[in-house]
Amino acid sequence: MKWTTKITKVEPNHLVTKGYRQEDLIGNIPYPHVVYLLLRGELPSKEHGKMMDAILTACIDHGVTPPSSMASRVVASGGVPLPTAVAAGVLSIGDAHGGAIEKGAKFLQEGVTRMKEEGKSVEEMAELLVRESREKKKRIYGFGHRVHTSDPRTKQLFNLAEELKIARKHIALSKAIEKEFETQTGKKLPINVDGAIAAISSDMGFDWRLGKAFFLLGRVAGLTAHVYEEQTREKPMRKMFTVECEYDGPEERDIP
Amino acid sequence: MKWTTKITKVEPNHLVTKGYRQEDLIGNIPYPHVVYLLLRGELPSKEHGKMMDAILTACIDHGVTPPSSMASRVVASGGVPLPTAVAAGVLSIGDAHGGAIEKGAKFLQEGVTRMKEEGKSVEEMAELLVRESREKKKRIYGFGHRVHTSDPRTKQLFNLAEELKIARKHIALSKAIEKEFETQTGKKLPINVDGAIAAISSDMGFDWRLGKAFFLLGRVAGLTAHVYEEQTREKPMRKMFTVECEYDGPEERDIP
Amino acid sequence: MKWTTKITKVEPNHLVTKGYRQEDLIGNIPYPHVVYLLLRGELPSKEHGKMMDAILTACIDHGVTPPSSMASRVVASGGVPLPTAVAAGVLSIGDAHGGAIEKGAKFLQEGVTRMKEEGKSVEEMAELLVRESREKKKRIYGFGHRVHTSDPRTKQLFNLAEELKIARKHIALSKAIEKEFETQTGKKLPINVDGAIAAISSDMGFDWRLGKAFFLLGRVAGLTAHVYEEQTREKPMRKMFTVECEYDGPEERDIP
Amino acid sequence: MKWTTKITKVEPNHLVTKGYRQEDLIGNIPYPHVVYLLLRGELPSKEHGKMMDAILTACIDHGVTPPSSMASRVVASGGVPLPTAVAAGVLSIGDAHGGAIEKGAKFLQEGVTRMKEEGKSVEEMAELLVRESREKKKRIYGFGHRVHTSDPRTKQLFNLAEELKIARKHIALSKAIEKEFETQTGKKLPINVDGAIAAISSDMGFDWRLGKAFFLLGRVAGLTAHVYEEQTREKPMRKMFTVECEYDGPEERDIP
Repeated sequence: MKWTTKITKVEPNHLVTKGYRQEDLIGNIPYPHVVYLLLRGELPSKEHGKMMDAILTACIDHGVTPPSSMASRVVASGGVPLPTAVAAGVLSIGDAHGGAIEKGAKFLQEGVTRMKEEGKSVEEMAELLVRESREKKKRIYGFGHRVHTSDPRTKQLFNLAEELKIARKHIALSKAIEKEFETQTGKKLPINVDGAIAAISSDMGFDWRLGKAFFLLGRVAGLTAHVYEEQTREKPMRKMFTVECEYDGPEERDIP
Repeated sequence: MKWTTKITKVEPNHLVTKGYRQEDLIGNIPYPHVVYLLLRGELPSKEHGKMMDAILTACIDHGVTPPSSMASRVVASGGVPLPTAVAAGVLSIGDAHGGAIEKGAKFLQEGVTRMKEEGKSVEEMAELLVRESREKKKRIYGFGHRVHTSDPRTKQLFNLAEELKIARKHIALSKAIEKEFETQTGKKLPINVDGAIAAISSDMGFDWRLGKAFFLLGRVAGLTAHVYEEQTREKPMRKMFTVECEYDGPEERDIP
Repeated sequence: MKWTTKITKVEPNHLVTKGYRQEDLIGNIPYPHVVYLLLRGELPSKEHGKMMDAILTACIDHGVTPPSSMASRVVASGGVPLPTAVAAGVLSIGDAHGGAIEKGAKFLQEGVTRMKEEGKSVEEMAELLVRESREKKKRIYGFGHRVHTSDPRTKQLFNLAEELKIARKHIALSKAIEKEFETQTGKKLPINVDGAIAAISSDMGFDWRLGKAFFLLGRVAGLTAHVYEEQTREKPMRKMFTVECEYDGPEERDIP
Repeated sequence: MKWTTKITKVEPNHLVTKGYRQEDLIGNIPYPHVVYLLLRGELPSKEHGKMMDAILTACIDHGVTPPSSMASRVVASGGVPLPTAVAAGVLSIGDAHGGAIEKGAKFLQEGVTRMKEEGKSVEEMAELLVRESREKKKRIYGFGHRVHTSDPRTKQLFNLAEELKIARKHIALSKAIEKEFETQTGKKLPINVDGAIAAISSDMGFDWRLGKAFFLLGRVAGLTAHVYEEQTREKPMRKMFTVECEYDGPEERDIP
C-alpha cells in the first residue's frame, strides 16, 4: 500500500512543498502566492499573485449574520476550543453560501467552451444562456445579493483584473450576461462578489471545483476573529437572539 | 437585544472592517496584513506584516500524516463537499496538534511577567522554569519534534525575527530554555516550529489565546490542497491503510 | 420574523415534543420509538418501533477502519473534546460512506412508482432497472460490500422485516434486483446492510432524504465508543499508521 | 504497528461487538442497551437498561434556541448535506452546553470519594461543598436553568432512579446540595436535567469523562429532526433572525 501525493515531501529536517523548500518560501514568497502554489502546483506570475491576494481579502468577512459567522459564534458560545468553533462556520459553506463561486465558475466555463464549439460571440452566448435559464426557470449563479445592489468588492475585483490584464472571456461573458439579463427582463441583477470571483478565477485558469475553496480560505480569517471576539467579549451561553417561535406540530396529547 | 461587534459594519454597498472600507483593502493591503488587522484591530507595521506572512507560510503543510491532513483526507473519502472535509481537519487542531503554540506562548508570557516581578534575568528565569518543569514532571510545550531535530522552519522564522528587529524577551527566554535544558539534562530538546511561533507572536504582542489561530490560518491552505488532491486523484472509500487490528475485548459469547 | 417548528414547544417547566410531554416519553416510550416520532411525527406501531430499534443497532459499528471511525480517532488524537471528535466522524458520512441508504432508497422508491405507473411486476421492473443501469454503466447503490459477501446484518434485518410483516414492494424489488443481477451478469452482488435499510425504511414509508440519518443515528454510538477508547487508552498524537508515502510532485527547486 | 481495540472484531461475514455477534444484538437487544454495552463493555441489568433509555430520551430536544439546534439549522441553511449540519450542532456541545453533566459528575464523584475518606455524612459533605464553592465563588455545575425552575425531565428521571432502585450516594449528595444551597443562601437553585443525569450516571458507575456523551447521544435525534425540518420546510439562506448589530470598532478611515 503506497500513498502518492504531489503536495509535500517530508523528511527529517527537510520539507519540500511543490518542489520548494519550506524555509525558502517562508518570508520570501507572500502567503497568497503560496496558497496559489498549493492549489495550482506552480508559483503565480506577479499579476496572478496579486489577484489571488485580492480574492482572499474580498472574502474575509460580512459581519455577524451570514450562516458561517453565525454558526461559529453560536458554537463558540457552547464553550468549545477556538478551532472547533471556526470549523463549524466552515461547515456552513455550501451550495447556498459561497457555493455560487463553484456553480458560477462551472456555468461560465461551460459557456466559454460552447462559444468556441458553436462559434458564437460573447454577446450571442450571453443572450442564449439568459434565455435558456429563463425558459428552464433556472437561477443564474453569481448574480444578485440580499444586501448589496452595487457590491463594492465586485467593482474593485474587476478593476484589478483589468489593471493586471487578467480579464479574458469569462469576465466578458459574465458582464454580457448582466447586461443581457436587463435587456430581456428590464430588471437589474448585478454580478455579486461570488460571481466576480467565479469569472476572475476562471480567467486565471482555475478549476471550478475549487470555487468554494477561495471563499473558505479568505473567510476563515473573519471566522477566527468572530470566535475570538465571542470568546473574549461575551459570556458562554449568552442569549443571542429573540426568535419568536411558533409550534405548529401536533396538539398536546397523552402517550398511548 | 443588541449585538455589538468590533469586526465589520455591514450596510448596503458599504462594508467597513476595523475602520477600513473593504474595497480599499482589496488589492492594496496584503492578505496577511488583513489577517493581522482582524486579530489585532490595527494594520501591522511593515515588519510585523512581513512576520505575520512568514508565520502563515510556516504552517501550510506537513504532508499526509498529521491528524489534520489525515482527518481531511479520510473524511473526503466518504464523499462529502470540500468545505466539510477541510473542516474535519481543522477540528483536529487541539492541545496535542498545534496546541503547543497556545501553551508555549502562555508559558513564555507568564515567564516574562515573572522576570519583571521577581527581578530576574532571562538566564535565571530559564534555569528556574526548566528546574520547576522537571521537578513537576511537566512537559515544556514548543520543544522537541517527532520528525525533525533541527526544524528548517524554526531557523528561518527566528532569522526573520532578528532581521525585522522583532526579537525581544520571549524569543530570548525561549532560546535560553533550550540551552538550559541541555545544561541540566545533557539532552537536546530543540525549539520546534510551534515553539518558534509561540515566542515570536508573544514578542509581537499577541494574546496567547490566539495560539491555535496562527496554525489554523496557515494550515487551512494545506488541508484544502489535500482535500482537492483526494477528490480529484483518488476514488471515494479507497483502502487507505493497512492497519493491523487486534480485538482484545470480551470473548465471543451468546446474548443472555 | 417568526420561526415555525413542528418539533418541540418550549415553555417554562413544560416541554412538548410532537404533542407529547417529555416527562411522559422519558422511561415510558423506548428511545428508538422516540427517534421515530421525531422523524415521522407519530409514535410507531409496535412492529415499526421494533424495526426502528433493529435498524439503529445494525449501524452501531464496523471497527476502526471505516472513514467515520478513523476520522473520529484521528481527530481525538489531536487532543480535543469528545464531541468534537465524534462530530468529525459524523462529517465523513457522505455519498460514499452510508450514502447508499439514501441513494438506494431513492432508487427503490422511484422503481416502485414506475411499477405502478407502467403496470409492471416486481420481476419486470428488476429486469429493466438492472439492464438500464448496466447500459448507462451506473452503479446500483446498496449492493456489494468491500468486506462481506453475506452480511449477517442484512440477513437479520430482512428476517425481522418478514417476521414483523413490514416487508412490501421495496424489499421485494430489492431482492429481485439481486437475483436479476446474477441472471444478467453471472456475478453475485449481494444486498449490503445499506441496501437492506434502504429497502426496509422505504417499506416503512420513510422519505429517502432521511437515508443518511439512520446510519448517523446508529453509528454515533460506535463513534463515541471509539473516541472514548482513544482518549482513555492511547496517547495523544500517537503514531497511528505506517503510510508509505511517495511524493510525485515537482522536483526540488530554488525559488525564483 | 498494531492497533488494539475492545470494541468490534471485523471478519468477513462476522461482526462481533463487545463479544456479541451483531446479528444477535439486532432486534433482540434494545438499542439503548447496546449503547450501554458500547460504553461499559457489558450489557446492562434490566434496571440499568431502562435508566439508560430514559436518559437518552431526556436529552432529545429543547426547541430551536439552544446553541446545538441553532448551529445545525444555520449550517443547514448554507445548503449542505444532512450529516454536515447535524455535526455542526454536535460541535457546540461544550463546557457551557451539556458540559454540566461532565463537570457535575466529576464534582459529585469527588464528593462521594471525600465522604468516604473523611468519614462525613451526605449532609456534612453537602454543607462543606456548598460553603467551599461560595467561598471560592465557584459555580456548582448541574444546578439552575435559564428557562425552567422545576424541570419536568429532572423529576421524571429521579422518580425512575428511585423506582429502579438505582439511587445511591451521588443522587443523595446532589439532593442534599440543592437543600443546603437554599439553607445557606435563602435562594433556590434547583437541580437541572444535566445535574440529574450527572447524579444518576454516577450512581450507575459511569466515568464522568462520558458526561457529554449522554447528552450527545440523545440530542443527535433532535438535531437530525431540526436539520430535516430546515431542509424540507425552509429555503436555503433564509433570513433567520433580526439581530440588531452595533459596530463599535474603529471609526471609518482611509488606508495608510
